[in-house]
Amino acid sequence: MEQLHDTNLRGFASDNYAGTHPEVLEALAAANGGHTPSYGADPYTARLQERFREMLGERTEVHPVWGGTGANVISLQAMLTRWGGVITPSIAHVNTDEGGAPEKVGGFKIIPVATPDAKLTPDLIRRHAGSRGVHTIVPQVVSITQSTELGTLYSVDEIRAICEASHELGLAVHVDGARIANAAAALGVPLADMLSGVDVLSFGGTKIGAIGAEAVVVLNPDAVSGLEFLRKSTMQLASKMRFVSAQLLALLDDDLWIRAAAQANAMAARLRKGVADLPGVSFTQETEVNGVFAILPEGVADRVREHAAFYDWNAETGEVRWLTSWDTTTADVDRFVGLVTRFCRQ
Amino acid sequence: MEQLHDTNLRGFASDNYAGTHPEVLEALAAANGGHTPSYGADPYTARLQERFREMLGERTEVHPVWGGTGANVISLQAMLTRWGGVITPSIAHVNTDEGGAPEKVGGFKIIPVATPDAKLTPDLIRRHAGSRGVHTIVPQVVSITQSTELGTLYSVDEIRAICEASHELGLAVHVDGARIANAAAALGVPLADMLSGVDVLSFGGTKIGAIGAEAVVVLNPDAVSGLEFLRKSTMQLASKMRFVSAQLLALLDDDLWIRAAAQANAMAARLRKGVADLPGVSFTQETEVNGVFAILPEGVADRVREHAAFYDWNAETGEVRWLTSWDTTTADVDRFVGLVTRFCRQ
Amino acid sequence: MEQLHDTNLRGFASDNYAGTHPEVLEALAAANGGHTPSYGADPYTARLQERFREMLGERTEVHPVWGGTGANVISLQAMLTRWGGVITPSIAHVNTDEGGAPEKVGGFKIIPVATPDAKLTPDLIRRHAGSRGVHTIVPQVVSITQSTELGTLYSVDEIRAICEASHELGLAVHVDGARIANAAAALGVPLADMLSGVDVLSFGGTKIGAIGAEAVVVLNPDAVSGLEFLRKSTMQLASKMRFVSAQLLALLDDDLWIRAAAQANAMAARLRKGVADLPGVSFTQETEVNGVFAILPEGVADRVREHAAFYDWNAETGEVRWLTSWDTTTADVDRFVGLVTRFCRQ
Amino acid sequence: MEQLHDTNLRGFASDNYAGTHPEVLEALAAANGGHTPSYGADPYTARLQERFREMLGERTEVHPVWGGTGANVISLQAMLTRWGGVITPSIAHVNTDEGGAPEKVGGFKIIPVATPDAKLTPDLIRRHAGSRGVHTIVPQVVSITQSTELGTLYSVDEIRAICEASHELGLAVHVDGARIANAAAALGVPLADMLSGVDVLSFGGTKIGAIGAEAVVVLNPDAVSGLEFLRKSTMQLASKMRFVSAQLLALLDDDLWIRAAAQANAMAARLRKGVADLPGVSFTQETEVNGVFAILPEGVADRVREHAAFYDWNAETGEVRWLTSWDTTTADVDRFVGLVTRFCRQ
Repeated sequence: MEQLHDTNLRGFASDNYAGTHPEVLEALAAANGGHTPSYGADPYTARLQERFREMLGERTEVHPVWGGTGANVISLQAMLTRWGGVITPSIAHVNTDEGGAPEKVGGFKIIPVATPDAKLTPDLIRRHAGSRGVHTIVPQVVSITQSTELGTLYSVDEIRAICEASHELGLAVHVDGARIANAAAALGVPLADMLSGVDVLSFGGTKIGAIGAEAVVVLNPDAVSGLEFLRKSTMQLASKMRFVSAQLLALLDDDLWIRAAAQANAMAARLRKGVADLPGVSFTQETEVNGVFAILPEGVADRVREHAAFYDWNAETGEVRWLTSWDTTTADVDRFVGLVTRFCRQ
Repeated sequence: MEQLHDTNLRGFASDNYAGTHPEVLEALAAANGGHTPSYGADPYTARLQERFREMLGERTEVHPVWGGTGANVISLQAMLTRWGGVITPSIAHVNTDEGGAPEKVGGFKIIPVATPDAKLTPDLIRRHAGSRGVHTIVPQVVSITQSTELGTLYSVDEIRAICEASHELGLAVHVDGARIANAAAALGVPLADMLSGVDVLSFGGTKIGAIGAEAVVVLNPDAVSGLEFLRKSTMQLASKMRFVSAQLLALLDDDLWIRAAAQANAMAARLRKGVADLPGVSFTQETEVNGVFAILPEGVADRVREHAAFYDWNAETGEVRWLTSWDTTTADVDRFVGLVTRFCRQ
Repeated sequence: MEQLHDTNLRGFASDNYAGTHPEVLEALAAANGGHTPSYGADPYTARLQERFREMLGERTEVHPVWGGTGANVISLQAMLTRWGGVITPSIAHVNTDEGGAPEKVGGFKIIPVATPDAKLTPDLIRRHAGSRGVHTIVPQVVSITQSTELGTLYSVDEIRAICEASHELGLAVHVDGARIANAAAALGVPLADMLSGVDVLSFGGTKIGAIGAEAVVVLNPDAVSGLEFLRKSTMQLASKMRFVSAQLLALLDDDLWIRAAAQANAMAARLRKGVADLPGVSFTQETEVNGVFAILPEGVADRVREHAAFYDWNAETGEVRWLTSWDTTTADVDRFVGLVTRFCRQ
Repeated sequence: MEQLHDTNLRGFASDNYAGTHPEVLEALAAANGGHTPSYGADPYTARLQERFREMLGERTEVHPVWGGTGANVISLQAMLTRWGGVITPSIAHVNTDEGGAPEKVGGFKIIPVATPDAKLTPDLIRRHAGSRGVHTIVPQVVSITQSTELGTLYSVDEIRAICEASHELGLAVHVDGARIANAAAALGVPLADMLSGVDVLSFGGTKIGAIGAEAVVVLNPDAVSGLEFLRKSTMQLASKMRFVSAQLLALLDDDLWIRAAAQANAMAARLRKGVADLPGVSFTQETEVNGVFAILPEGVADRVREHAAFYDWNAETGEVRWLTSWDTTTADVDRFVGLVTRFCRQ
């Protein structure tokens, strides 16, 4: 197959624009050849199970899937009865960016909570945890995103407090970890410590270097039921699962996922620092991982965009979102900072 | 990542047990590097669109997905109203092997039709096409599998007759093409000729050498609505779609898909021929593509299975299913025939 | 409101064509006036609960609903996990006449079983109770209709055998009792004896004299979960439930439901006897309750139908279905027999 | 059936606590007797169709159902594609009080909009009408409640402006008219004028005197598809529909629905006036129809409640909700005002 794109072009539009890490491709090659049982009965999936148990404890169960929306919808279905709902920030991906899959496929309702920074708190959870008998759906799960859709981060203590408050209220806790690697790199603590008390994690591999590999990671098996069946009926059961598991194994080998995320995070910090003092530039969120949410002087965004891709976040206020990825280089950042500087100063 | 399996071991359990074709891995590498837009706005997905138009005509629309169940459920939803149902052989994968996804995710009912050979006919379709107003769901789609779950094949004329009968009844036609490559190789006609009159095809890449790549191929855009939305809400929208499209492009390059399927088909024929005259061996289905459905003398299956993997098909009658794949070799077949011969003669 | 129909006209089309029993109207009047709590917290619903406990034991739970499809879909959802399916005769109402509601609303798959007389047997159940891991839905419930859609009847022993076989297989048993009254009248045994071993009953009131009142009757609370929530989300929770419960209480008072059903059954027997010896008339099913399934000489059905309503059952074979109802009189039957006799002899 | 409740007891808990109007019972009796075709092919349903056409124009289509949640979920499904969503106030019944039925049964997402008074405006609609391709569900319908869950009312002009703004945005307009009668009585304009531009109405009969009768009323048939099928699969198709239609006909006869609603509205106004000047009493909403939302001095609510039923609305602020109904008398109100007065002054 002929190459059709410029392999030197990198922008700040999304960590989904990046390709796959070379070590992931090597893992696919290593997993290839011969026959192995399908649907997860292969040695790579077994090894992945071991790896997650080493990280998160003996009760951990891992179920590889293709995509993040799938991981979330499977997790939440497995945690909910047919009459339960999910408390989550209104900005959460599961509320805004999954094309209605939770409602359509899972049949469950999302209870959106307004937040300034995409983060729930015990207070916010308590305020939305009530129900009125059969008339309302019953809040049963709290879903938080770590790191968040706004590039912010829950501290270890914040997650622990959310888990405690939720469990007191009889709610289970799900973490959408599409960017859990960025959080792990930023917090610098073992995953088990970060997720103490969490019941189920959607572990993200794609944004940090896989071609398409995520996993439902069950930390507390008592919090779920039917997960294997739900992965199948939610159409995320890969027949040649060895290749999904191999991607995740490659990311976990020698902490590639953490190293890749650390690079992305560092590049976002460098980018933010590079534009922080420019006239008319301000920020709407902390840059705790790989995202910079900035307000630019009028007209600047469109001029910069002629040279490098990124998205408007709020067209009314002039807010833009810049995301770095595992393959962003200091040269990429410095060139981009140069562009922003030039157009801000013109 | 460490290699964990024997790359020389190949059996006859399933074409899903096989790995990926080396050219597919090369395509992943070629598609890698740099940034490309996500969710299908990349040049590989655009090229794939062109390739399918060259094969199937200018109106063709291709939507890459990860898995076959996903391809089927998206296709059928896009073809059905909220009150429509699908006529299909009771043995069809969409009826028996999709974990209830059509009903659960699509909300639609399947109308199973008993068949001896997994094949519908115009007569069978007519007999099941009626409805009684609002009390029954309304048959709106006919779904056939080419090649079938029993290793049989619709001829070009049979498909054409099914399409004509269906369209006369106001029914659209879907082809589950998880093994369309095997059918194309066996029939030796261009895909456009084979599918003349068909409205939507689930094009299968995984079984013939991809790591996980299928596509909803719309031949008649008037027969579907909302396909892009449904791919998202049915959780088959890959963020890094370039890598799904690249797999399919690799298969289409120089007709790799046909060549790979021809090898699998030839090996099944060789296998069948090799055991055909053994005492107590009979066949329940024609071997038209890559499957052999055989009845073995009592005890033989289990003894052969100690040396090579395959599945029982009907434990009561002693029927087994042997599937060959793109990587099956004549040596594999001959060794296996030797095993069967030995245990049949003991 | 002006009366718009002929109150003396009665045919043999359906027991749904009949009106409501005068005692039901009286019950509505008695339940009227003043304020009572809504959604089932009224004294009539409480009394209904007592009445069913008297009939079926102290663990019985009754949940009044408006319609039979609703009763079935709520019952089955409450008995199934998200990955379970229902074994039922292919002719069962829940498979053929509920507009796809089980699949669309409940998201569950029905496993239809071909039967000559609309009746399952332990053998048929065993043959369909298997599953193959996550690929197939998991049979979890057996649903039988008593009396059946073909006017046949399970004996007490047959139901007991079905329950035993099902429970041994880990399956729960649901009875669609849209015409349970006709069965109770025909068998002449207490309902508790007839349903020994059954887990959940859809109790039908409408066909036997209510204006619209059925109930989900849970005999084994361990077999269900979330029933109250599911009744609400399945949109069968009446706000002014006292009027639904009052209808059912009226039917249970002095065994009105049995008396009404006995009349219907007797009229069907009379009708069958009246036409049994006519030239060219034969029957396809036993007449065990209120239905006669007959094959008439060509042309007779249409000529009779000019004088009294009824439905063709199988246009190809000339089979018709005649249903009697609680208000059918001997005069109605005799007049109808006269018509059939006349046109058969012409 | 024995009478089990005090027919003289009336409170202010809900218009669902009230019984049925005597004229509705008379209509049931008039519709009784003889056989009429089931499932809506009876003369009462036909007459109801005529009545609504007289009121709302020749294109009007009416589909009687049992309950309000059913009416809403059917309407919205018929107006939405599988990828559409509904903009509605967050306080709307369809968002808060339908047990998740829209999501579970309809599979669609609700886009809740915060409002102070339960009313949408063109501006609010515009602000929520956007989508971002396949990632978000597509807003396709605006649903407003008339009169609202907070006892407020849209003026004729407000509804017209909402319809205009919505249609400009390509959105259809649904009115949840569970209390449309109260609105009609309050506004004093013909229903056709009030609903000019509206596409579909859930017409409420139950709260204003029926025992359980609502209707999906389609004003613009181009805005819906499959309504008859959806009524069946959403389990709101009454077999003995004549009795549902008869209830609605009784309400429409001589404008009983308006007269009944006018009484309820007048009683709410009288109640509000009666307590308006009491020390510590304030109101959180206008009393435009049959609801009074009041904040009482601490302890008063519970003491009054010992004598007459009503609900707390916001336990934190001491807000209560008092609803009047068609059968509320001036004596009821005056006695209740006396109670509130007594306990406010103690």
